[in-house]
Amino acid sequence: MKVGIINVTGYAGMELARILLRHPEAEITSVTGRSMAGKSIGEVFPHLAELDMTITEDITESVDVVFSALPHAASAERLAPLIRDGVKAVDISADFRLKDLAEYETWYGTAHPCPELLEQAVYGLPELHKDEVERASIVGNPGCYPSAAILALAPALKAGIIEPDIIIDAKSGVSGAGRGFSFNTHYSEVNESVKAYGVDGHRHLPEIVQELSLISSNGGVNLTFMPHLIPMTRGIFASCYAPLKEGAISSGEDAIGEVKELYNEFYKNEPFAKVVAAPPATKHTLGNNDCVIYPTVDTRTNRLMVFSCLDNLVKGAAGQAVQNMNLMFDLPEDEGLRHVALYP
Amino acid sequence: MKVGIINVTGYAGMELARILLRHPEAEITSVTGRSMAGKSIGEVFPHLAELDMTITEDITESVDVVFSALPHAASAERLAPLIRDGVKAVDISADFRLKDLAEYETWYGTAHPCPELLEQAVYGLPELHKDEVERASIVGNPGCYPSAAILALAPALKAGIIEPDIIIDAKSGVSGAGRGFSFNTHYSEVNESVKAYGVDGHRHLPEIVQELSLISSNGGVNLTFMPHLIPMTRGIFASCYAPLKEGAISSGEDAIGEVKELYNEFYKNEPFAKVVAAPPATKHTLGNNDCVIYPTVDTRTNRLMVFSCLDNLVKGAAGQAVQNMNLMFDLPEDEGLRHVALYP
Amino acid sequence: MKVGIINVTGYAGMELARILLRHPEAEITSVTGRSMAGKSIGEVFPHLAELDMTITEDITESVDVVFSALPHAASAERLAPLIRDGVKAVDISADFRLKDLAEYETWYGTAHPCPELLEQAVYGLPELHKDEVERASIVGNPGCYPSAAILALAPALKAGIIEPDIIIDAKSGVSGAGRGFSFNTHYSEVNESVKAYGVDGHRHLPEIVQELSLISSNGGVNLTFMPHLIPMTRGIFASCYAPLKEGAISSGEDAIGEVKELYNEFYKNEPFAKVVAAPPATKHTLGNNDCVIYPTVDTRTNRLMVFSCLDNLVKGAAGQAVQNMNLMFDLPEDEGLRHVALYP
Amino acid sequence: MKVGIINVTGYAGMELARILLRHPEAEITSVTGRSMAGKSIGEVFPHLAELDMTITEDITESVDVVFSALPHAASAERLAPLIRDGVKAVDISADFRLKDLAEYETWYGTAHPCPELLEQAVYGLPELHKDEVERASIVGNPGCYPSAAILALAPALKAGIIEPDIIIDAKSGVSGAGRGFSFNTHYSEVNESVKAYGVDGHRHLPEIVQELSLISSNGGVNLTFMPHLIPMTRGIFASCYAPLKEGAISSGEDAIGEVKELYNEFYKNEPFAKVVAAPPATKHTLGNNDCVIYPTVDTRTNRLMVFSCLDNLVKGAAGQAVQNMNLMFDLPEDEGLRHVALYP
Repeated sequence: MKVGIINVTGYAGMELARILLRHPEAEITSVTGRSMAGKSIGEVFPHLAELDMTITEDITESVDVVFSALPHAASAERLAPLIRDGVKAVDISADFRLKDLAEYETWYGTAHPCPELLEQAVYGLPELHKDEVERASIVGNPGCYPSAAILALAPALKAGIIEPDIIIDAKSGVSGAGRGFSFNTHYSEVNESVKAYGVDGHRHLPEIVQELSLISSNGGVNLTFMPHLIPMTRGIFASCYAPLKEGAISSGEDAIGEVKELYNEFYKNEPFAKVVAAPPATKHTLGNNDCVIYPTVDTRTNRLMVFSCLDNLVKGAAGQAVQNMNLMFDLPEDEGLRHVALYP
Repeated sequence: MKVGIINVTGYAGMELARILLRHPEAEITSVTGRSMAGKSIGEVFPHLAELDMTITEDITESVDVVFSALPHAASAERLAPLIRDGVKAVDISADFRLKDLAEYETWYGTAHPCPELLEQAVYGLPELHKDEVERASIVGNPGCYPSAAILALAPALKAGIIEPDIIIDAKSGVSGAGRGFSFNTHYSEVNESVKAYGVDGHRHLPEIVQELSLISSNGGVNLTFMPHLIPMTRGIFASCYAPLKEGAISSGEDAIGEVKELYNEFYKNEPFAKVVAAPPATKHTLGNNDCVIYPTVDTRTNRLMVFSCLDNLVKGAAGQAVQNMNLMFDLPEDEGLRHVALYP
Repeated sequence: MKVGIINVTGYAGMELARILLRHPEAEITSVTGRSMAGKSIGEVFPHLAELDMTITEDITESVDVVFSALPHAASAERLAPLIRDGVKAVDISADFRLKDLAEYETWYGTAHPCPELLEQAVYGLPELHKDEVERASIVGNPGCYPSAAILALAPALKAGIIEPDIIIDAKSGVSGAGRGFSFNTHYSEVNESVKAYGVDGHRHLPEIVQELSLISSNGGVNLTFMPHLIPMTRGIFASCYAPLKEGAISSGEDAIGEVKELYNEFYKNEPFAKVVAAPPATKHTLGNNDCVIYPTVDTRTNRLMVFSCLDNLVKGAAGQAVQNMNLMFDLPEDEGLRHVALYP
Repeated sequence: MKVGIINVTGYAGMELARILLRHPEAEITSVTGRSMAGKSIGEVFPHLAELDMTITEDITESVDVVFSALPHAASAERLAPLIRDGVKAVDISADFRLKDLAEYETWYGTAHPCPELLEQAVYGLPELHKDEVERASIVGNPGCYPSAAILALAPALKAGIIEPDIIIDAKSGVSGAGRGFSFNTHYSEVNESVKAYGVDGHRHLPEIVQELSLISSNGGVNLTFMPHLIPMTRGIFASCYAPLKEGAISSGEDAIGEVKELYNEFYKNEPFAKVVAAPPATKHTLGNNDCVIYPTVDTRTNRLMVFSCLDNLVKGAAGQAVQNMNLMFDLPEDEGLRHVALYP
């Protein structure tokens, strides 16, 4: 299977290269990058020197599948002609995630480059949309925050055990802000500090709302999503809070057991959504494709609390993209993705 | 003014020494420490070598005021005889914080060593209890999380603009776990990782509930408090969420302005509770005695959001203790506490 | 191939489990741990839960090869009976590294538990002793610092191009100090700080001296080895300095080219000793088994400078141990060790 | 005393503001910054909001002393007219450090903007040039590495106890690379990683050579200086190695005592050069103006080893600049500089 990576020089693209380099069914045949075109991969990323290729401006080989790790708008623009040529595409940008074109234009402040392709696109969270992904030719790979948040809340919303009054307080490592330069990626500014950001609204919000509304057995959600920047390189931790719906579940200690059972059941066949028995840490997911989920109940206030975590560059980006590729090509879902976390 | 520090060898005690060493009205005359008794301060903490004293088992001098940085129970036990001798006391442990003895015993799992002294004790959050602190002979210095959380929510609760349905998602650096050894203070375990802890209930909860209920214009609060451990040394960041009460405040963008005005007004005379116009970071409080507070509204969901941060060893412990001492001894409230944050 | 791990609960043991879990020819059949005996692996290390085993006090299965990650002395003691039963052993402790019993006893302050086995033991640095390792039944796996330092200097010493007047200034992440508790593993103490340690002599010195003297074409070395503790979890960086021997090599810019060629040639067939063309960073080795080496010359002073780095838990411990196992069992040297670095 | 700060928006300028804001004899009356001109200090640096001033393009007030934290060349260019107007100047850039114009031009790749002023300039390391600084109108404030390295080696070179064959292996936190954007200040790139940089020659080398040659009782030095980038915000640690000169000092254990005595004596009257009895850590200097120095001997190889550390933004930049100002204006040398380290 011939694979192309558009914009290999950002973190998501680089991480795709790391994973695909050891994928038994994939062969990377073309990688692009704007400012670095003409250089070898090894010059830019010494740890990938084994991938003995030159970075080009455009995809130069005919490929079976293409991943794009470009920013939004630029991504769809580059992908569109390849898609029309019959290449399957996994887009790590936001361009194929939102079903509602107006929402896209509101949040991203630009017209969509190829709205006519949106209908074919599938939201690539395999734990919720596996069948569609298997048949898809365009997958909009979820954002890192949405991956953690949606998997944390889907079982409870589907079962209708919570009021749709949800707070997601999320914490992200710095690599989520990419390889570009800003005070949010400047070491001395973010080290030894925590802050909330995107206080007026983060672009991952509409995506979370779209998916949670879809799965909710009680319609729309009233959702506050608040991301925080944390001094570490990789990892996302989502703390989710919602009131239990009276009568829908036992109260007190019993609720804890029922919630855990519900979550275990929901994800029992999923290789990468792991419901655990003790509160997790992002370090349990360092470098692997797991989303680790810990549901419990604050019995003092009868609130559901779900803590989920993942590696933003793997299950939150490149790993999930490869998981989607595996499904699109009828490969085992975890092919090339059986990394053990690099703990500590 | 002669000052004693009980248990100078923990982080709160050490930080008291740092601050008091430069306090123009205070002279440290006696410092204690259990395992380190007999050593000089400089052997244990080279950066405090200038404080040329030997650590003793007990307070050896007669002092005007004593600070205790011992763990709970041990602290009250050591302080009680000194208090009875007329020494003013600021206790950094939890022993003099809770008014309700039963709550103390439930959360701390032990009988209180001197319940008869509780009545004299004042909860030492000067922004809320300044008059009482000025007249107090025993001050229970607030916990680090409560300092951040209570200051974040007091104005809104007092004004009655929120429903008492509150979530506090707090993030703490590692020094909050002290100088003792555990996997929560082990570098390789906590570095590059985030986790929730105290998921079944953290000891700072009853303290927050006590104070918020007291100030609330609508009675009790239904409060979830969830602390997280973050890979940095100092700093606490509290993200507080509560629904705005319908009719009590404008909705939409107007609410933001009203909330900000309310907070500015509430803290206008406070030297250390600083309401700011842009979302803050814990680094803005590194080494100083500020609690920086940013109130706003999620206009999509009509929720109040308040972000507050402080240095857990300063405003969250030793600095606030000195602020209390200043008030107890009729000194300027900010005497010896005018540090500028060590940014970056 | 049945494999046992003695003391799986330290970082080296845990890392062995991570690597062996995906090794196609190895099956972990028995793991021991002292304080954790009776618990499942997943309870202690959630990221290894897939390895569904109970930790026992002793090796409970008959195994083909055993790894020990115990501290010195305890390690040889536990290994000796297994070795006598014909089990091949890779010892990650220092017990089988030093040829000179007196040196061992001087540096480790204890008698060797089984000196009669020393003669069979091979120093397991495959790049220098591949043939011996292939035939060995006991391998003393090198220390983390020695792995980086010896590989950095061996080519120059063998070629006789430097005076044996060597300084190795090494920097290590905190995981090198293990999973035990001390102020050297305490987050708040080591974060945001650098220091030299072992200033009066570090136990890895005799091991480095032994191997460098052995390979030197000019006899003994006059070596200063100075380790430093750096605020990061994994990684060792060795900066090595020695005067070029007059007449043995060109001077000035030409020397740089000759040195690089010498190093490239020396390691041309080695899968894990990688000579690179640009100064490396420890992050290039995060989680992989590489020792990355950058030789150059300070042309102002005619000094050889070699910078080498590796992941102390992989090439500096568990990865190298597996590399040795592969050689001992006639497997491809890099079997199970083809991890790509987890950058960034 | 009216003070101006040119380029307050970099880290050195910002740190000057932090220190001068509490200096009892100084009043900041004018601050400049290029891209931020027109903004208030508090908008750019919330922790300095108390300094209620607008950033301007040029020094707008007449001042008694001006500090420049501009890059080289730009700095001298801006300072020259002020100096000619009789304003005393402390330049944190490299423009007034090197006595040899050719060296300046070689290392900085540009002509000096005002070579005619060089003769008046004093190298502002007060521990070595106090008298000259007191009489100076232009002070070239030393680089951060040179401050640590020169203070570490000066006593030994002056006493003639070492061969001038010196290696300085230095480790710096990331703030040394400033507030600008580069992969050397990018969080995800430098976090959890160590590397050598400036391998072909760092601009601080000529400055170290100039000063050490000047003080050496045996003429020139043969010096390798190798900086490393360490994942922490503040701090420099210099590890210095040189062979003891045979006959100039005892050998073996006695040498250690003699060396310590020599250093203690050399710095006995210096408030900020502190010779200590145990190996230090950079954290001992966090936020204070100390250079902490630990001299010892590797008795196995008869090498002097000196470890020194300091906060690169304080003793390595702004603090030392204020120390120089104090001397130039006949104030107590430590006025406004009595900060206790912010440990941990």
